[in-house]
Amino acid sequence: MSLLVTGSIGIDTIKTPHGTQERCLGGSSIYFSMAASFFSPVRFVGVIGDDCPFDLPEVFKGRDVDLRGLEERAGSKTFVWHGTYHEDMNDRTTDHVELNVLQEAPPKVPEVFADSRFVFLANTAPALQLELLDQVTDPTFVAADTMNLWIENDLDDLKRLLRKIHCLIINDDEARLLADEPNLVKAGAKILAMGPPIVIIKKGESGSLMCLDDGETFVLPAFPAAEVVDPTGAGDSFAGGFMGYLARTGNRDDDTLKMAIAYGTVVASFTIAGFSLNGLTDITEKEIEARLEALRRATRF
Amino acid sequence: MSLLVTGSIGIDTIKTPHGTQERCLGGSSIYFSMAASFFSPVRFVGVIGDDCPFDLPEVFKGRDVDLRGLEERAGSKTFVWHGTYHEDMNDRTTDHVELNVLQEAPPKVPEVFADSRFVFLANTAPALQLELLDQVTDPTFVAADTMNLWIENDLDDLKRLLRKIHCLIINDDEARLLADEPNLVKAGAKILAMGPPIVIIKKGESGSLMCLDDGETFVLPAFPAAEVVDPTGAGDSFAGGFMGYLARTGNRDDDTLKMAIAYGTVVASFTIAGFSLNGLTDITEKEIEARLEALRRATRF
Repeated sequence: MSLLVTGSIGIDTIKTPHGTQERCLGGSSIYFSMAASFFSPVRFVGVIGDDCPFDLPEVFKGRDVDLRGLEERAGSKTFVWHGTYHEDMNDRTTDHVELNVLQEAPPKVPEVFADSRFVFLANTAPALQLELLDQVTDPTFVAADTMNLWIENDLDDLKRLLRKIHCLIINDDEARLLADEPNLVKAGAKILAMGPPIVIIKKGESGSLMCLDDGETFVLPAFPAAEVVDPTGAGDSFAGGFMGYLARTGNRDDDTLKMAIAYGTVVASFTIAGFSLNGLTDITEKEIEARLEALRRATRF
Repeated sequence: MSLLVTGSIGIDTIKTPHGTQERCLGGSSIYFSMAASFFSPVRFVGVIGDDCPFDLPEVFKGRDVDLRGLEERAGSKTFVWHGTYHEDMNDRTTDHVELNVLQEAPPKVPEVFADSRFVFLANTAPALQLELLDQVTDPTFVAADTMNLWIENDLDDLKRLLRKIHCLIINDDEARLLADEPNLVKAGAKILAMGPPIVIIKKGESGSLMCLDDGETFVLPAFPAAEVVDPTGAGDSFAGGFMGYLARTGNRDDDTLKMAIAYGTVVASFTIAGFSLNGLTDITEKEIEARLEALRRATRF
């Protein structure tokens, strides 16, 4: 089924204990689309300035990623992010941000994308997420991400959004903040009560927790990876694998959701093995299936 | 098969967001023995002062815990520990410690325990762990815990110990320190190279990671528990469930080790639901089996 993503496109400069990558391609919609493209066609909505050094059609060449929602805005500048991961790579500092085109009007969802059934709204102001969602006629499954900034400053908008989506995908610290509850299982339950029937809490190298409104809980560790070169994009790749698998199956029963979490976990484990998209671009579906089997073996008792 | 434990017995005062418990029973050998007793007979070795307010035969009444290795030392005082768990209960402060009898000579392993096959050496100075282990004639499976203090100050003794044991059970921060490596999968591999064929890294609410010298890795999340009243003793209960299950089966193949990790995880999830031993004392084997099944359902895809 059709899968639409709206999110950022960034020029990233990343330092990790494994090296530095300057002005490489990043952004939530980029990681999401590359990850999801292993499972499903992707409809891409995002905006760049006229300074963008990346040839996105070339980046997604050979993949079923429809870039008709990509806007290159004349006179605007592309989003820029600089970050440093420390020795313990769970510890990240944002060194520099230029929002640029992201603080202007959001891109439009092209009319040819309006019939999309699966929608992922990557992190941005919840009012913009609502505006983007309004341009999709009759979605069957909508997931969104958010962050501390909106929980603290735009909670009313965020609560309106939560009543319109099926799934919130959120980091552990953000879940604690949104629910005002340190225990993640309780936090998940409190967020379920705000609207979405599915809450997925991302815990970085500790994996993820999914709380469902039928009372089921699913927990999965991250793939035990010895090679972590650059964690940037792990969360968006996770969301891409998750949504891509759901869009492929067209289902959302508990077993399908669990498989989708496992695929998201696997795809994210490839992302972190290289800078920018390098960990993802060379893998094959066969390698994804093999790692899924390895994850199953590593967690089954 | 026979399972021997040596470790501390403590008078704990614990503050958590759920309340305060003053002068309650604690200590590694206490939690370990209670947890292991659901699976296997336990031989208990530990020392208290003549001020100890607890009736240990009464505590373990009806369980197959052989207290002939319990020494009440005249003129000595029992170990005292005060700790506070903060709003985020992963964050613990030690407020007060009186080592007392723990800094005197260790207890002796009674001769009737010398033929023990499974041995757990809870955290203490590695020289003392070696001395205790020397009193067991022909153990088939020895596991030990350790802590930052010994890694920093008694590394040579600890390395001698690591060459004599089959399994190290250690916290994540300690594993990073011992291996001088932030990535836990790599840290596990480096500790395997120090001697023990099995390394288990405890990650608190994020579960555990087991690295085996045959190259297998096993990861399991903690049981997704909404009720966490007091995390004290979770790690020792985990070790007790793990070793108790191994001693019951008498095996140590990979599948048995994975099941043992799962049972350790389940027993620890009961421990944290109450202060001191309250979470453990009232449960039944049937409840343990039911929660094992729930953990399986919550992690299987």
